[in-house]
Amino acid sequence: MDELEIDAVAEADLEEPVLIEGLPGVGHVGKLAVDHLLEETEGEATLVRRLYSREFPPQVTIDDGVSQLTCCELHAVSTPDARDALVLTGDHQAQSNAGHYLLTSAVLDIAESFGATECYALGGVPTGELIDEYAVVGAVSDPSLKPPIEDAGVEFRENEPAGGIVGVSGLLLGLGERRGFDATCLMGETSGYLVDPRSARAVLEVLETVLEYDLEYDSLDERAEEMEDVINKIQEMETQQSMDVPADEDLRYIG
Amino acid sequence: MDELEIDAVAEADLEEPVLIEGLPGVGHVGKLAVDHLLEETEGEATLVRRLYSREFPPQVTIDDGVSQLTCCELHAVSTPDARDALVLTGDHQAQSNAGHYLLTSAVLDIAESFGATECYALGGVPTGELIDEYAVVGAVSDPSLKPPIEDAGVEFRENEPAGGIVGVSGLLLGLGERRGFDATCLMGETSGYLVDPRSARAVLEVLETVLEYDLEYDSLDERAEEMEDVINKIQEMETQQSMDVPADEDLRYIG
Amino acid sequence: MDELEIDAVAEADLEEPVLIEGLPGVGHVGKLAVDHLLEETEGEATLVRRLYSREFPPQVTIDDGVSQLTCCELHAVSTPDARDALVLTGDHQAQSNAGHYLLTSAVLDIAESFGATECYALGGVPTGELIDEYAVVGAVSDPSLKPPIEDAGVEFRENEPAGGIVGVSGLLLGLGERRGFDATCLMGETSGYLVDPRSARAVLEVLETVLEYDLEYDSLDERAEEMEDVINKIQEMETQQSMDVPADEDLRYIG
Amino acid sequence: MDELEIDAVAEADLEEPVLIEGLPGVGHVGKLAVDHLLEETEGEATLVRRLYSREFPPQVTIDDGVSQLTCCELHAVSTPDARDALVLTGDHQAQSNAGHYLLTSAVLDIAESFGATECYALGGVPTGELIDEYAVVGAVSDPSLKPPIEDAGVEFRENEPAGGIVGVSGLLLGLGERRGFDATCLMGETSGYLVDPRSARAVLEVLETVLEYDLEYDSLDERAEEMEDVINKIQEMETQQSMDVPADEDLRYIG
Repeated sequence: MDELEIDAVAEADLEEPVLIEGLPGVGHVGKLAVDHLLEETEGEATLVRRLYSREFPPQVTIDDGVSQLTCCELHAVSTPDARDALVLTGDHQAQSNAGHYLLTSAVLDIAESFGATECYALGGVPTGELIDEYAVVGAVSDPSLKPPIEDAGVEFRENEPAGGIVGVSGLLLGLGERRGFDATCLMGETSGYLVDPRSARAVLEVLETVLEYDLEYDSLDERAEEMEDVINKIQEMETQQSMDVPADEDLRYIG
Repeated sequence: MDELEIDAVAEADLEEPVLIEGLPGVGHVGKLAVDHLLEETEGEATLVRRLYSREFPPQVTIDDGVSQLTCCELHAVSTPDARDALVLTGDHQAQSNAGHYLLTSAVLDIAESFGATECYALGGVPTGELIDEYAVVGAVSDPSLKPPIEDAGVEFRENEPAGGIVGVSGLLLGLGERRGFDATCLMGETSGYLVDPRSARAVLEVLETVLEYDLEYDSLDERAEEMEDVINKIQEMETQQSMDVPADEDLRYIG
Repeated sequence: MDELEIDAVAEADLEEPVLIEGLPGVGHVGKLAVDHLLEETEGEATLVRRLYSREFPPQVTIDDGVSQLTCCELHAVSTPDARDALVLTGDHQAQSNAGHYLLTSAVLDIAESFGATECYALGGVPTGELIDEYAVVGAVSDPSLKPPIEDAGVEFRENEPAGGIVGVSGLLLGLGERRGFDATCLMGETSGYLVDPRSARAVLEVLETVLEYDLEYDSLDERAEEMEDVINKIQEMETQQSMDVPADEDLRYIG
Repeated sequence: MDELEIDAVAEADLEEPVLIEGLPGVGHVGKLAVDHLLEETEGEATLVRRLYSREFPPQVTIDDGVSQLTCCELHAVSTPDARDALVLTGDHQAQSNAGHYLLTSAVLDIAESFGATECYALGGVPTGELIDEYAVVGAVSDPSLKPPIEDAGVEFRENEPAGGIVGVSGLLLGLGERRGFDATCLMGETSGYLVDPRSARAVLEVLETVLEYDLEYDSLDERAEEMEDVINKIQEMETQQSMDVPADEDLRYIG
């Protein structure tokens, strides 16, 4: 096993594709968004590359008793009306600093070989509290990239995210810029405590505007409602518990 | 010292051997199983390879004052009635992600050089509670491998093990598949708290059926009984202690 | 992305320059000092090299929505009256042992290519308590370097710093000496709890004497006063809190 | 800076030298022993090699204001009556698994180049309690090495040290054996809580017998007495404190 092994599963002829990344991260926003995009473009998406690496956890996932070695995958998406895309998804980030650099470089190499010069890194930005209105915060590799993204409703904030952007999303901006890519990161606000399909939808709606996709959100909304049912049940339980505990006043009558 | 050093201790002529792995892990199930298999086939087993690596702990074990450098070993087992086998055992797993990939690749290289195209990774799956009936859970690199294993009593469960399979056992499935191996993982249910010879026996009984071994279990059962004596003593001590602590009711008569 | 990538942003013709390093560390003393030096020599400083490395955190910083890949920078400073200098600054140290060696070696390579044979590593030495008089402690790669530094007010102490000097500052002495550099480390005393502009000024005043710079300190003093306001507010709050808690004696009159 | 850099400081003509290692470890026994040996043979010892490595901490020690890059050193010791020796000392072990393998291999390479085929690794074995009689426990790379060591009073115990031997001492046995060295580890019993010059003396006395050295122990005994003074003071303080706390009985007369 080399440091990195790339399986060419299929080829695809893409016209000026954009690279779209959604690996696991805050609120799983990026991964939810990208997985939904692949689901909605199923008939038009082709798995083209698998990347295996010593930098991933030494692990297989098991689905119905059958193993799959940890990897990340690139899908070519070609739809009649929207921009062609190369979509990166996977279950794991690299496990070391050097691994992040290695994998991001490899992904940019592949994207270049498919003719891409633009990329969108999708993710979440944690706010620490539950959210009603899902804003999308942006970051770009070059100031000239801001206007079209701002037109799509994305906010650029002076000091956000305060800690910068870490992992593959950050490096797609940083290494991407060094190789001449126009790189944009779209971060849906999310509490940071829960998997957040609503935040993923907010991010996808920006992408829809920018790349002219036309997506349905039924399945993503369903997952959001399931999550909200879970949250409601937890909140009910907490309310119930606080009712079960007698207040100070009640205690007078007990003793 | 290179990243990896392989000592060819002896050669052996094996016919379509299967690779069987049992390195330390949950409940030491895999290691107990493989060590018992080697004990029971002692006259027919030959140590053929030792693998040393910088990825192992920088450590020697001391047995009666004599040192042995950390390594893992491959034994060729050739018995008249059962399938030939190449059995991997050792006291340590690799200590880094990259190390797991490196060592598993090296083991598969050696297995290939002996003509193996099948492998069985043995291990335990933790249940979190003491066990009466030891089920064996399976995972395979390809769905076509399920039927014979199911016939031997192995269960395939939809979402188990939930966290996937980590370490050499996992990579034998994942890297094995990429190199054309038919790879199976047999995981004995075990509490996860104790070394578990009963679980190792359950796993070996499956292997016996599949590979036509004919094993005795006296020594393994003895170890299991020793473990059960230890557990009983701990439980007695706990019962005794709770008897020594006066209950609330008793306290009325003291004060 | 290689282990290390060096961007030659510009060239500069320097005469016997000294390398001056100020990466983040105790009290951010070194970084504050070097950033202030670059601010004060702004018209005479040129960014000449950027160093990117897998050993840095896989991260971009975001400034007003625009990303910048983690790197460290070398600025050529050429002023009429002072010694020419090559000034190293950055937001991060390397993240591994080997990374510190790699980056320090690379910086020394570049410094050599600009004709440098002397270097000054700037930093802080923690005292564990708030400081009134800011002493500067020195360490040198060779005893012959002590006298001029002592003349500038630097103290050499028998057993300080007790734990040695770690990171790039330490290696500039250690690796620098191995390559024939005259290397000096100037460490401003600092509590170790806070960013400390006063300590940075003390270090810079030594450098001013040694290299004949003529610096203003208005902006650094301003930052120091801001820090002191913060400290005062914290101390007031603590005093207020202890006044709000009635002492034992007071309690007699309440109840 | 390469992974490893070896400075040939001087050459020495040794006759069948033994390699003696004493790097920091349990109770600093090995390092104390080797440093004492070098002190006692001062006129007859020559520093021959310094080893620098990325695997050491990125650090300089400071002695009276002058820096020294972390390294380990080999001294050639040639005395009229005792066996010639190559003595390894240093302030640090490697900081990673691979680093231990790398440095031990390098040391064995150098030892071979000086004609050595035997080595003695010196260290401590922790007992967890203060010690009156300092036994020395042995481990050897080959059973044939036991008799002469046993004659010198070293004990070989069935299951000790239980956890094996870790670090350079362990690898000198393990890697040494693989390269044809006769390797012995001498471990002085020590509490494991304190720097232990008495244990170092016990180890050196074995070495004296085996290699025919004739050492004085004044300075080592002095350090031992200093340590014992410290221990006595701590014990006195503890006794005093327990006397200051009134026992239950005393309390009757107070209230």
